Amino acid sequence: MIKAAVLGATGYAGIELVRILSNHPEVELRVLGSHSFAGKKIDEVYKNFTHILDLDCEELDLDKVSECDIAFTALPHGASKTVIPSLIERGLKVIDLSGDFRYDDVKVYEEWYGEKHSSPELLMESVYGMPELYRDKIKNARLIGNPGCYTTCSILGAVPLLKSGLAKTDNIIVDALSGVTGAGRGLALGYHFCECTENAKAYKVTNHRHTSEIEQEYSNAAGVPVMISFTPHLIPMKRGILATIYVNLNRESSAEELTDLYKKFYENEFFVRVRDTGDLPETKHVAGSNFVDIGVCYDKRLQRAVIVSALDNIVKGAAGQAVQNMNILFGLNEKTGLKNAGFYL
Amino acid sequence: MIKAAVLGATGYAGIELVRILSNHPEVELRVLGSHSFAGKKIDEVYKNFTHILDLDCEELDLDKVSECDIAFTALPHGASKTVIPSLIERGLKVIDLSGDFRYDDVKVYEEWYGEKHSSPELLMESVYGMPELYRDKIKNARLIGNPGCYTTCSILGAVPLLKSGLAKTDNIIVDALSGVTGAGRGLALGYHFCECTENAKAYKVTNHRHTSEIEQEYSNAAGVPVMISFTPHLIPMKRGILATIYVNLNRESSAEELTDLYKKFYENEFFVRVRDTGDLPETKHVAGSNFVDIGVCYDKRLQRAVIVSALDNIVKGAAGQAVQNMNILFGLNEKTGLKNAGFYL
Amino acid sequence: MIKAAVLGATGYAGIELVRILSNHPEVELRVLGSHSFAGKKIDEVYKNFTHILDLDCEELDLDKVSECDIAFTALPHGASKTVIPSLIERGLKVIDLSGDFRYDDVKVYEEWYGEKHSSPELLMESVYGMPELYRDKIKNARLIGNPGCYTTCSILGAVPLLKSGLAKTDNIIVDALSGVTGAGRGLALGYHFCECTENAKAYKVTNHRHTSEIEQEYSNAAGVPVMISFTPHLIPMKRGILATIYVNLNRESSAEELTDLYKKFYENEFFVRVRDTGDLPETKHVAGSNFVDIGVCYDKRLQRAVIVSALDNIVKGAAGQAVQNMNILFGLNEKTGLKNAGFYL
Amino acid sequence: MIKAAVLGATGYAGIELVRILSNHPEVELRVLGSHSFAGKKIDEVYKNFTHILDLDCEELDLDKVSECDIAFTALPHGASKTVIPSLIERGLKVIDLSGDFRYDDVKVYEEWYGEKHSSPELLMESVYGMPELYRDKIKNARLIGNPGCYTTCSILGAVPLLKSGLAKTDNIIVDALSGVTGAGRGLALGYHFCECTENAKAYKVTNHRHTSEIEQEYSNAAGVPVMISFTPHLIPMKRGILATIYVNLNRESSAEELTDLYKKFYENEFFVRVRDTGDLPETKHVAGSNFVDIGVCYDKRLQRAVIVSALDNIVKGAAGQAVQNMNILFGLNEKTGLKNAGFYL
Repeated sequence: MIKAAVLGATGYAGIELVRILSNHPEVELRVLGSHSFAGKKIDEVYKNFTHILDLDCEELDLDKVSECDIAFTALPHGASKTVIPSLIERGLKVIDLSGDFRYDDVKVYEEWYGEKHSSPELLMESVYGMPELYRDKIKNARLIGNPGCYTTCSILGAVPLLKSGLAKTDNIIVDALSGVTGAGRGLALGYHFCECTENAKAYKVTNHRHTSEIEQEYSNAAGVPVMISFTPHLIPMKRGILATIYVNLNRESSAEELTDLYKKFYENEFFVRVRDTGDLPETKHVAGSNFVDIGVCYDKRLQRAVIVSALDNIVKGAAGQAVQNMNILFGLNEKTGLKNAGFYL
Repeated sequence: MIKAAVLGATGYAGIELVRILSNHPEVELRVLGSHSFAGKKIDEVYKNFTHILDLDCEELDLDKVSECDIAFTALPHGASKTVIPSLIERGLKVIDLSGDFRYDDVKVYEEWYGEKHSSPELLMESVYGMPELYRDKIKNARLIGNPGCYTTCSILGAVPLLKSGLAKTDNIIVDALSGVTGAGRGLALGYHFCECTENAKAYKVTNHRHTSEIEQEYSNAAGVPVMISFTPHLIPMKRGILATIYVNLNRESSAEELTDLYKKFYENEFFVRVRDTGDLPETKHVAGSNFVDIGVCYDKRLQRAVIVSALDNIVKGAAGQAVQNMNILFGLNEKTGLKNAGFYL
Repeated sequence: MIKAAVLGATGYAGIELVRILSNHPEVELRVLGSHSFAGKKIDEVYKNFTHILDLDCEELDLDKVSECDIAFTALPHGASKTVIPSLIERGLKVIDLSGDFRYDDVKVYEEWYGEKHSSPELLMESVYGMPELYRDKIKNARLIGNPGCYTTCSILGAVPLLKSGLAKTDNIIVDALSGVTGAGRGLALGYHFCECTENAKAYKVTNHRHTSEIEQEYSNAAGVPVMISFTPHLIPMKRGILATIYVNLNRESSAEELTDLYKKFYENEFFVRVRDTGDLPETKHVAGSNFVDIGVCYDKRLQRAVIVSALDNIVKGAAGQAVQNMNILFGLNEKTGLKNAGFYL
Repeated sequence: MIKAAVLGATGYAGIELVRILSNHPEVELRVLGSHSFAGKKIDEVYKNFTHILDLDCEELDLDKVSECDIAFTALPHGASKTVIPSLIERGLKVIDLSGDFRYDDVKVYEEWYGEKHSSPELLMESVYGMPELYRDKIKNARLIGNPGCYTTCSILGAVPLLKSGLAKTDNIIVDALSGVTGAGRGLALGYHFCECTENAKAYKVTNHRHTSEIEQEYSNAAGVPVMISFTPHLIPMKRGILATIYVNLNRESSAEELTDLYKKFYENEFFVRVRDTGDLPETKHVAGSNFVDIGVCYDKRLQRAVIVSALDNIVKGAAGQAVQNMNILFGLNEKTGLKNAGFYL
């Protein structure tokens, strides 16, 4: 059994990790770190866990965490910086769910996050935890920067096209919708039920941090620097991200050709479901599961591909992908603990 | 492996059965019966099943179903009547999710359902599938009448009090709220998103059929005939039932005494979670799981117990309880395939 | 033109007052009091008011408020206590939306609110602002205690029966559902969108303060002291209260007889709509309007009336009723500014 | 008083017209046409109208409609074709809410709607009912093609930029979100509450009819033919459209410069609210009102404007704009009956 710690266990990504890991046949949950709820039982904080998980939330105790094989850090931005080097030093595998270890270039991080990076060497060592792109590197990593929610959806939705050479890279636009769990459990007026229900809004237009993470991977895939417009929107649902991606092509194509391209690219990927031509993803199809669904359209009037991709922001966009990474790290079947169909209802 | 058929697989209770059974380690799903979608793959009808379950929906074929060990019938009221006797005859275990096989007395059925019962002998033989009350009988049954959603919530919420002798039985009121999956997948104006969201209503006041089913079990528990007011309400959510139950007591008591009574009554029941005094159930705590949560209050001004119980109407109120019954029928651990924490989010 | 001040203008009841008054043909809004947003324009706080209302939020300035004819106080519980006597002294009419001036008996207030009342003489003078019951007293009042949301719904739903002499008064139960605006705009985990949507819960079972306010008016109507069970529930919608009221009768009756009784009782009341037998209210029918809808059922098995009533908690349950009271106070047609159909959608 | 008929009164756009007109001080509603509910009172179909509007729904009777001054046709696509010429002939003003009379060029209509136009001469005569662009023509029109919901939002959001000469016209993308009322009241599985809530999806990608209507007005504004990508999305709310519009610029600019441009363009338009730089529209700010809110952003990395616009699809996107057009047609103040703040809650 893999002994696991979840640090930041009572946020929405953290508790989804706990939910998945508590059902994982090869994992023993040992430590639930939570500053806000230290001393409380996890099932006092999330009452769905009564009769399921009998663990206390606790303040960070590095010695105790060190008895684990792996730590998932779902800590507030910044808090993870001091903890992670200590855990690595003590020999744990670390999967970090913050934005701190996702970048190839420390300058990009510092520009978009507006601060110095505290462990640039670890950043250089860390592996970007997107199995569909970096499975081999993940296998031997000590530290994984688990991708963002918007970014996973946006990257998996466009990489096949960018790698194919069909894409023009100068007018790519990613327009994305997110459920409210993406904003976390913190209190703010904008997430009050009465302010949030029956409301749609765009936010951080032109300057959301995930832009830089998407651009990094788009550039890697295209082999040239790519800059994009990325616009996130908040809509009144809990789970789910839907990204609509516009890419001009450098020659005529068809929905069928593009769909084939995607199907081939992902033919060995269990968690990516490329839909048939004319069939489009919906967040309901992926909610509660680790799947990404992708539908590919082609606008022949404009010689433009329009790709729609959907995932559950706290599963494939956070906790599920983290567990997928853990499975790879420990040589397990990648689907272990993640092979379920989603709720639908 | 238990070979299983789900007849009526594409309704909401049916597809939840499929979802649970597709993750059940001891079950092999063999047949998905669906008149409306016969010939389609299940993952065309519910796209969350792509990469998970590769089965076609099909018209009823008794010979094919007969190769199974068990059939779950989630058919429209009436449709199950002719099918079930044939299945029983061919040696299958049958768990029926309709109201047809839940009654001790055929007259009660005929009065509340307004029609003759087609198989009164089978009704007499059938066992009411509430494991917490009838586990021993379930073990050897051929045919199980799986309880209704409102009824499971109402019965488990009051039986300990009714059996204790503390309850006066003449002014019991059950006021219950249900999510919209309870109404099924059929189209009707009242379930259109725009009519349903931001709306609450009572319906079938004084005459909902579940009244009779609750009264049967309340009477069995109390040892005297009990008549109640039962009022169902539709509220704008998908999953969940919350029942608030008012019972006058024949002597003074306290919330603590009553909570103890409930905790003892259910001390060996994994799927019933009696909350501590002052802690009340919410549908969010049980959604997606097979748990029933119960909170007990006492109004000393009125010498009245007020009990609140919550469950997921399509899990413990339908598909989950059916799988729990199947586990008992086949000698499995009752929790098999059902031991998960609920979604919360 | 009536010059009006709204103190506590940026809470949910306050802003609904502003919305209604900004469309009222006989009112000029002069002062918007808001401690939290003092110095901001109202349309920075509620952006729906841009191009509609060009007023600043301001800290309480008694001299400025004194230039008005009327003040609506929608202040946090307690804050209104010192302000209101000063306003009365300066000759304003005051309509208070808190619980402070709704009681006949200061002892009842002090028992249920757990503190001394600061102005018992004003409490004695104040009039309970339910026009359907106390229109004549309201006309000449200086201070009106505007009724609570649950209470308006519960009282108007039962008073005709209680006054008729048909009701037994010892087993009355009021089970009520509320939208989340009822909880106000303050931040708390329970009102976070992700915690609130897809969730139903009961709260303050056996001890909600509105119990005492309902009991007061039930007792007044029945002519004997009445004690009830009142259970509030929070459900995932913004606006609306639905109350289901159970009353045993002292002789046989029928839905038709009871409906007639209600129709006669309210025949001159524009804002009360008694539905025909078999037709039940829904919150969608009243949302955004000042109407209360009432449906009356009869359970002949139990000789029990079951009444369902619905209103919009921030209109007839707060701001709308306050404006109705203002219209009466100033001799206007009671419907002025309130004669609209509700949103439905 | 203007005597008005609403044909198709019981659909969602129709009933919103009835709601607005029943509060309009210069209008007398005479005829409510509804094939589906002919013979029923309007307040049986929409119970919010009890005590407000005492009119029957009726089958189309041209003679009776002819006694009106104006007819609003909110009929299913096609049904309006035969009715409208008759009404025009009899001297009524007609405001048509379908797509039939919105086009400058019959060929564009026929290509996107896939059928011959039945009254091409009337199409040539009809005026596109967007007051902000065509107020003068509207004044004297007999027949107004009331703009679509997505189109109003998309057009008003981009026209100032297109007219300014700053816009490059070859990579314009409009990504839009709609509430479910946009789909109408008809029953379909996709609009069942349980399928719709907690779900987001794109639909009709690359081929939605509104594309052609937007392109027509973008071309008119730019003075050159413009082709765009338009992607509609369905999200779980009732009312509201939010459009995010991407336009490359032909020189460097700034958010301030662009915002100024918009503010000047709309300085005399009551119903268009251009937000200050950095302030973005939300559908909650416009729901229930006739306002369009616009926020302008600039991405200096990409020399690209990103404009966000929001409106209520059944008010400014349908019924409200129709009433605005009627006010112009009859020489009334354009705000009459439309000057309210929106619900917010």
